[in-house]
Amino acid sequence: MFSLIPVLVAIVCILIVWIFKNVARGIKRRKEEPRAQAEARPCVHDNLKDSTGLHQVEEDADAWQESEISVEHVPFSHTRYPEKEMIKRSKEFYELLNKRRSVRFISNEQVPMEVIRNVIKTAGTAPSGAHTEPWTFVVVKDPDIKHRIREIIEEEEEINYSKRMGRQWVTDLKKLRTNWIKEYLDTAPVLILIFKQVYGFAANNQKKVHYYNEISVSIACGILLAALQNAGLVTVTTTPLNCGPRLRMFLSRPTNEKLLMLLPVGYPSKQATVPDLKRKPLDQIMVTV
Amino acid sequence: MFSLIPVLVAIVCILIVWIFKNVARGIKRRKEEPRAQAEARPCVHDNLKDSTGLHQVEEDADAWQESEISVEHVPFSHTRYPEKEMIKRSKEFYELLNKRRSVRFISNEQVPMEVIRNVIKTAGTAPSGAHTEPWTFVVVKDPDIKHRIREIIEEEEEINYSKRMGRQWVTDLKKLRTNWIKEYLDTAPVLILIFKQVYGFAANNQKKVHYYNEISVSIACGILLAALQNAGLVTVTTTPLNCGPRLRMFLSRPTNEKLLMLLPVGYPSKQATVPDLKRKPLDQIMVTV
Repeated sequence: MFSLIPVLVAIVCILIVWIFKNVARGIKRRKEEPRAQAEARPCVHDNLKDSTGLHQVEEDADAWQESEISVEHVPFSHTRYPEKEMIKRSKEFYELLNKRRSVRFISNEQVPMEVIRNVIKTAGTAPSGAHTEPWTFVVVKDPDIKHRIREIIEEEEEINYSKRMGRQWVTDLKKLRTNWIKEYLDTAPVLILIFKQVYGFAANNQKKVHYYNEISVSIACGILLAALQNAGLVTVTTTPLNCGPRLRMFLSRPTNEKLLMLLPVGYPSKQATVPDLKRKPLDQIMVTV
Repeated sequence: MFSLIPVLVAIVCILIVWIFKNVARGIKRRKEEPRAQAEARPCVHDNLKDSTGLHQVEEDADAWQESEISVEHVPFSHTRYPEKEMIKRSKEFYELLNKRRSVRFISNEQVPMEVIRNVIKTAGTAPSGAHTEPWTFVVVKDPDIKHRIREIIEEEEEINYSKRMGRQWVTDLKKLRTNWIKEYLDTAPVLILIFKQVYGFAANNQKKVHYYNEISVSIACGILLAALQNAGLVTVTTTPLNCGPRLRMFLSRPTNEKLLMLLPVGYPSKQATVPDLKRKPLDQIMVTV
């Protein structure tokens, strides 16, 4: 019986080593599984690496204008201009948009609301993934609500500046004239807050993912900026950091909506200045093959 | 000595239970750590939940037009129209853009290259995070290169349809006329592939993150779509799934560029049809406060 003790100790040692190895392997496997899955589909998501989780789904490249149900196809009617006129129109449109600048100094003069309605209707002509039109434009004119929006944004911005930003970023910002005081949120006669609807609801009330919602809504914002410039109004493209949930709740927007952008809109104030920035020349942004 | 055996077994049992418990707790802790970190900063990133990893950095809401170094500020010159003209201009621009449709049937007729250059210059007037202008427009006219792009996209799309897509998605698509055959990639006289530069390089050759690059480039695409419509050309907004890396390498674009969109551009073919879709009325996309 004495000889049993070393045998028992040996068995226990083997047991302990075995348990350790197995548990360790379990951890390792758990860690590696997602990667192994990803590698099995090497090409998937790679070009969407920089895109949202919602983009990272199986998606048809061609689904941009189709709705869920089959719709009738009708002849497309097209306005064609003579070549000379095409060149003239494209040149004039470039000259118009090239005058657009982000303007932070906005006068408190009222703007015609019919123009605001028209520019938002224009933004609503943008294409969208699966024709979901996943945008909501909240137009704020009420001075008290504008002021509360300013308070929310300045509170969060002050925290951004003093706590959340990295040292390099704060150093960079010292060189700029930018700070967390956003006077234009009070003075601009209109604020347009653009929300993206990250999902919608199907007929059976089930959640329906809105593919490419951020890209779609950003395209609509591009068209909105062009429409504002065409009408002679100014704005500045802002994406208030960390303020989305508070502004969403303050404006009573539903949980499927997320703030993408805020545009203060109006006429420039008399003393408005802009940084003397240049745009890249065509040969730095275009490559011909 | 006999009495030692049960004691030894008891010790071993306790030891095994202890080891198991500790390892299990280790796994649990490892799983919970990232969440705990995220919860420590509840407001941060919340409104950017749907945005890219690159967005999830400390960012100034107001950094859209500033460059890294302080630049001189100059007076802003503005063209103001009388109210009546503003309303007229905004209405006409809406009517022009409301005629835009995504067109898949594109004729092989050549388009004036001066118009293509003008619309891309126009897209380049878009605002961008920290004025990085993080876009590259690759214009493909060569028939062989267009055809190779078509082959790459159709190969990937066929795999998307047959393997990568979920059953529900394939069922939905059966109702549509969409499939992986993209004839317009051969017929359209011009393909514009829009790449977003997810990072750039500072003076010291260090990587410099391009904040909000996807939103910026999507805004530029919105302006590009408006410019094409204004010139009387048609296109369809496509985001070729899984093709980004192959197309990037085929077109010799650097690794900091990722394909965001591909626009085949031209005149509509004579038999072009479009789905008979309607757009949401204004009261469904605009809320006034």
